[in-house]
Amino acid sequence: MAVITLLTDFGTRDEYVGAMKGVILSIAPRVTLVDISHEVPPQDVGRAAYLLEGYHRYFPEGAIHVVVVDPGVGGSRAIVAVRTQACTFLVPDNGVLTRVIEDQVPEVAVRVENRGFFLPHVSRTFHGRDIFAPVAAHLAAGADIRKLGPRVACDELVRLDIPPVVVTGETEVRGCVMTFDRFGNAVTNIDRQQLAALSGKGELEVRLGGRRIAGLSPSYASVPPGQALALVGSRGYLEIGINCGSAREVLGLAVGDPVHVRALPSRPPL
Amino acid sequence: MAVITLLTDFGTRDEYVGAMKGVILSIAPRVTLVDISHEVPPQDVGRAAYLLEGYHRYFPEGAIHVVVVDPGVGGSRAIVAVRTQACTFLVPDNGVLTRVIEDQVPEVAVRVENRGFFLPHVSRTFHGRDIFAPVAAHLAAGADIRKLGPRVACDELVRLDIPPVVVTGETEVRGCVMTFDRFGNAVTNIDRQQLAALSGKGELEVRLGGRRIAGLSPSYASVPPGQALALVGSRGYLEIGINCGSAREVLGLAVGDPVHVRALPSRPPL
Amino acid sequence: MAVITLLTDFGTRDEYVGAMKGVILSIAPRVTLVDISHEVPPQDVGRAAYLLEGYHRYFPEGAIHVVVVDPGVGGSRAIVAVRTQACTFLVPDNGVLTRVIEDQVPEVAVRVENRGFFLPHVSRTFHGRDIFAPVAAHLAAGADIRKLGPRVACDELVRLDIPPVVVTGETEVRGCVMTFDRFGNAVTNIDRQQLAALSGKGELEVRLGGRRIAGLSPSYASVPPGQALALVGSRGYLEIGINCGSAREVLGLAVGDPVHVRALPSRPPL
Repeated sequence: MAVITLLTDFGTRDEYVGAMKGVILSIAPRVTLVDISHEVPPQDVGRAAYLLEGYHRYFPEGAIHVVVVDPGVGGSRAIVAVRTQACTFLVPDNGVLTRVIEDQVPEVAVRVENRGFFLPHVSRTFHGRDIFAPVAAHLAAGADIRKLGPRVACDELVRLDIPPVVVTGETEVRGCVMTFDRFGNAVTNIDRQQLAALSGKGELEVRLGGRRIAGLSPSYASVPPGQALALVGSRGYLEIGINCGSAREVLGLAVGDPVHVRALPSRPPL
Repeated sequence: MAVITLLTDFGTRDEYVGAMKGVILSIAPRVTLVDISHEVPPQDVGRAAYLLEGYHRYFPEGAIHVVVVDPGVGGSRAIVAVRTQACTFLVPDNGVLTRVIEDQVPEVAVRVENRGFFLPHVSRTFHGRDIFAPVAAHLAAGADIRKLGPRVACDELVRLDIPPVVVTGETEVRGCVMTFDRFGNAVTNIDRQQLAALSGKGELEVRLGGRRIAGLSPSYASVPPGQALALVGSRGYLEIGINCGSAREVLGLAVGDPVHVRALPSRPPL
Repeated sequence: MAVITLLTDFGTRDEYVGAMKGVILSIAPRVTLVDISHEVPPQDVGRAAYLLEGYHRYFPEGAIHVVVVDPGVGGSRAIVAVRTQACTFLVPDNGVLTRVIEDQVPEVAVRVENRGFFLPHVSRTFHGRDIFAPVAAHLAAGADIRKLGPRVACDELVRLDIPPVVVTGETEVRGCVMTFDRFGNAVTNIDRQQLAALSGKGELEVRLGGRRIAGLSPSYASVPPGQALALVGSRGYLEIGINCGSAREVLGLAVGDPVHVRALPSRPPL
């Protein structure tokens, strides 16, 4: 009983996701369908890549992760199926895999071109229903990924530019706000390892939006309600939050805002 | 293992849909539940009818499609179960089937009145939980539709007035904007066949909102980002969109706005 | 095939719920997952308690109801698992069970502390994924609740203060607006029994927001569209609604607004 996950920018007010599920269940009636989110901002491939990095590793072996955030639908972009040891991704080749193929070496990657696995009539505007859904269902039902189309080398897959984290000297890293969650917590691109490299050198100080936050907190509840804090979030990235509040609103933050972390040398004892 | 789909205007912030699912799973634990949408605007039967037309045909044979968009709950409106060769609809008799019983001849239609299939206590305000959910579950578990209540003739079912498409002469059709999808694409009531009848007579020109769009595009990605285009959408209707943008916002469109399509005679070669 | 329901304040735009489902399906692949809502306002334990009261009783025996509305995550609050004759609750010990343990005597209640049932790495900010999900899955797969941690007495569980309904004399009760549903109907804390005690004493009159509504209506459709009405809602509470409209907006109501119900003595016949 395979699992198929769905991540799209289709929203939940139209019938798009429902039609995809109908197609899948018609081919693979015993599959377990899991909605990740359909609220990716329209055509925001970077946000989809960020989300995919966060959930895929928690699913059972063999799960099929479908992402339909696809500004190029009907154009010349390819659709690719990529199998790793743990799972299979079925996505437009637009960079959405950028974050997940860094740490998982694909076993097989193919361009999805075999129309025998598509719906009989393929529209130009809704490949989610006409290509992604039936192909995912056929994979779940046991189809061989190599029959979907020609092999592609993994380094030919489209990659997104991920904003880099810059290490300045030995005691400072400079990154940026990467995204926000529902609670208004700002997730940065500075990760646990980069913080660990600094933290041996003194107490950490985080600066963003004209504010200064001293030290890392273990959890949101470890500061009084309404107070700003910095912590390592559940994804392993530095996050800036407000206990019981929205850092995005209270601190007036936006995606891309610079974030500086410094290790302050301990003062010598007097 | 039957499939039950749910389309409602209940939203997802209350417990209404959850209670319906609990009732269904208590009666038919092995059913596959599929949420189509719970974001139908409150009491918007026309929108529900439009969505239902879009997804029902993609589901496996025998699927049970439940729609609870029901401004008349607790009043005198009937609840009907209608079985076609492909599926069963369980809906308030308020016109929501208007678009789907045009092209599918019902085999059986009944008024749902047998309280033996309802919850023991039926509230006056939440028939979704107390009637629709248990009746759908009993159907999924194999109950005979004819036991639900008396037969009704199909032409007695309530129909919505669907705005007509007017053919003016041989080279023009006049329709209107029927709905919008999440991306702000305007879906019109002019369909593929009506366009095909025109397109033999010259290049098509679409006019709406004071704008003029020349020709049909094959897909959103076939024009530069930000540009308006007309195409035949995934449902087979003429759509007006903006590549990577919202036609609704950019063109200031609303449901009901008139849409004219003309075939322009080719100019004679000079 | 156990049922696990999920009620959270995680929203549906992030990957949080998806990650929880991945963890659950990795441990208990045959479980039926039901989303109740992920739109609880952030950290609104009272709203979660109100919703839980509304859906839990409709699920099959043995269902596992998980609630992750958890302002204290990472702090010292406990996580508890509470089994009744009908179901099991897995929740932060923050009062979210207040409304459901009034009418169901728990058989067993334990503090969830046995890390053998958690994910190997437990973050400080996302116990939904790292503790609630795997523990729920292990319970669904047959783990003994008593192995999760030490027993707690039921009267030690945290309770919320529920605003009381005040009975004034024999012909009046005073309550308040408790919450709103998607349609803008105002749900009060005055219940069916309290109304029944009054209604033998004359026709009921409901006052709120400077308005006066005479009598109880059987359903929304029993007054003309746009008109205000009072009725006993599907949860057994007095509700104030507008047929085909939003009482919240039209009457300008807010949570906590006082609601008075009086029984008006019948006038003697002339």
